[in-house]
Amino acid sequence: MKVYIAGSGVTKFGELWDVSPRTLAQKAVTDALAEAGLDKGDIDALFVGNMLSGILGGQEHLGAFFAEELGLRVPAIKVEGACASGGLAVHAAVSSILSGQYRRALVLGIEKMTDYKPEEVALALMGAGSDEERAAGATFPGLYACLANAHMRKFGTTEHDLAEVAVKNHFHASLNPDAQYRTLLTVDRVLKSTRIADPLKLYDCSPISDGAAAVIISADTPKGAAVRVISTQVATDTLGLSGRKSLTELSATRKAARKAYAQAGIRPSDIRAAEVHDCFTIAEILAMEDLGFYGKGKAAVALSQKKTTLGADADVVVNTSGGLKACGHPVGATGVKQVAEISRQLSGRAGKRQVDGLAYGLTHNVGGSGGTAVVHILTNTT
Amino acid sequence: MKVYIAGSGVTKFGELWDVSPRTLAQKAVTDALAEAGLDKGDIDALFVGNMLSGILGGQEHLGAFFAEELGLRVPAIKVEGACASGGLAVHAAVSSILSGQYRRALVLGIEKMTDYKPEEVALALMGAGSDEERAAGATFPGLYACLANAHMRKFGTTEHDLAEVAVKNHFHASLNPDAQYRTLLTVDRVLKSTRIADPLKLYDCSPISDGAAAVIISADTPKGAAVRVISTQVATDTLGLSGRKSLTELSATRKAARKAYAQAGIRPSDIRAAEVHDCFTIAEILAMEDLGFYGKGKAAVALSQKKTTLGADADVVVNTSGGLKACGHPVGATGVKQVAEISRQLSGRAGKRQVDGLAYGLTHNVGGSGGTAVVHILTNTT
Repeated sequence: MKVYIAGSGVTKFGELWDVSPRTLAQKAVTDALAEAGLDKGDIDALFVGNMLSGILGGQEHLGAFFAEELGLRVPAIKVEGACASGGLAVHAAVSSILSGQYRRALVLGIEKMTDYKPEEVALALMGAGSDEERAAGATFPGLYACLANAHMRKFGTTEHDLAEVAVKNHFHASLNPDAQYRTLLTVDRVLKSTRIADPLKLYDCSPISDGAAAVIISADTPKGAAVRVISTQVATDTLGLSGRKSLTELSATRKAARKAYAQAGIRPSDIRAAEVHDCFTIAEILAMEDLGFYGKGKAAVALSQKKTTLGADADVVVNTSGGLKACGHPVGATGVKQVAEISRQLSGRAGKRQVDGLAYGLTHNVGGSGGTAVVHILTNTT
Repeated sequence: MKVYIAGSGVTKFGELWDVSPRTLAQKAVTDALAEAGLDKGDIDALFVGNMLSGILGGQEHLGAFFAEELGLRVPAIKVEGACASGGLAVHAAVSSILSGQYRRALVLGIEKMTDYKPEEVALALMGAGSDEERAAGATFPGLYACLANAHMRKFGTTEHDLAEVAVKNHFHASLNPDAQYRTLLTVDRVLKSTRIADPLKLYDCSPISDGAAAVIISADTPKGAAVRVISTQVATDTLGLSGRKSLTELSATRKAARKAYAQAGIRPSDIRAAEVHDCFTIAEILAMEDLGFYGKGKAAVALSQKKTTLGADADVVVNTSGGLKACGHPVGATGVKQVAEISRQLSGRAGKRQVDGLAYGLTHNVGGSGGTAVVHILTNTT
């Protein structure tokens, strides 16, 4: 059976204090239905990706909640896997279509974070970490700083290299009207920004964001441009860094990617556009290597040579949306937005940030500091 | 493709202050693997059903958490749907097997509730309710009391009828060594217990519990007794009661059941054992009617005639485990325990509470006051 992305919708990401979760959801879903040329009545099931509604809002039962809000009286399931909740929701929806249980499934990724105090949100996000890390008061900037330091020591990666990720992703976001930060950055400005957790500075970190994204996964062959999901793979690792063999790679990413390429029957070099999980700049460098786009320790050079920037010199354009770093990171929405972005790229509807001549695109969504990784491969080939 | 229950494990349910979540999970999973004759290495994916770890414990990312705790380096997904989280996790796992993505999936349902103050737990559970009900300070006993009052007014159901549910389920629990409350009750004792939300009294309410349950869903034909999942259906309704057309039925249950019988190609009268969601006594009466075992307003008579009690007179034995009422209700574990119980019944391993001559069994798991309903039908026929 072939599984298609029939439509997608992404709201503006950012500090949306004046917009309710139901309005965000309705916007994303309405756009996805319109793009698919479908009505609500065509949808057989709803999968909701969200992490924090319980911890921050005391609210669970989000599947039925959004089914009601959206006027969909269909089976509804919330899927959670920390910052990989959105990717896991897509994974579960694809399985549900392949199983024959449903024919058209709507995936909604959503998170509302800026209504809470930043310190509350930072603490809530540690709900994704290990017990030891939580007890020790670790935060995710600190954990990714450990990964950055290890990578710098082993491969000579520099703070300048990390800054290049931010500069690239802000450039891409400047071409994305829905991105949270569309301001161009310079390496110098990144390097001079406030230190958060050495060597990570303010502009090495993705923001706290509100936003929603929706995709419709369908067994029906679309009339127009057909984008298919040809791989959906999940892998897990220890929640905490202390249990890992290596701090210079995320083994869950490597494992999910290896299986995804095998499932698709393609190689990393066939991927020319990817949305990867750059919650911190070091995370994008790790992803570029762990996804097999570049050898270990080789990503920084490629980055500085604009090999992952939109333009004629690109090997693989990474994070055309602006990534988590500049498009924003409403946790549960991120993995769904990634699939929406790659789907738009593959159907030639990515506007100013279109990558030309694409055949395959990849999404990479991570939970915590690598406890979960979800990789999808999409194609426009028949 | 046929989908089997390869094994199951259920811990003792109750106030288990001295047992950690990881120990509960390990016990349930070890027993399920042993029953299936499988090793950890045979498991391809983990689905975790849980509702409250975020709200009560500030902890999410439970899929990867339990994958690590159980020594399973496999794809792991948490599924949430309030008190139907366990049933939804089974549903997602069955889909994942039917999709061909995985061959053997482990479903773990788990909840740890008694480590928190009862008022905290009661508030946390309202995370499953509608915004209006939360804002109004409603609690689930109050909401189910509304349903009970409506049923009493329309059909003449009495407090005595409600008490009969508790008496039956405590009798069944007395035969289940893992049940939370194994004490026999009398109608008189139920009627004289403390009023909680009129007409519901203390013994009309399921308890707050700790516990875990695991089932292994497999595409492999087992060597011994083969129990198959032949229906898995989910339906949703409004979260709040105010949006419902009727307060004397749960439409999500009716819808999921109708689809489940159609999927299985059987009728309600073919079901001779069922685990239904008796979070309150009235909920079992609603379920008996909404699942089609009896006409609307007819369940109470059947109950009083022991037609749902273990014994020679039974039409359909309801809640041999003791149900939520007496076996206990560790929220995320409940839907998985129901599938484990029916699987044991169908394979003749239910001990003193064995229903003889079974061919089909049903499980019914509800989220909130009926916002979600999940129905599974299992069989031992080939």
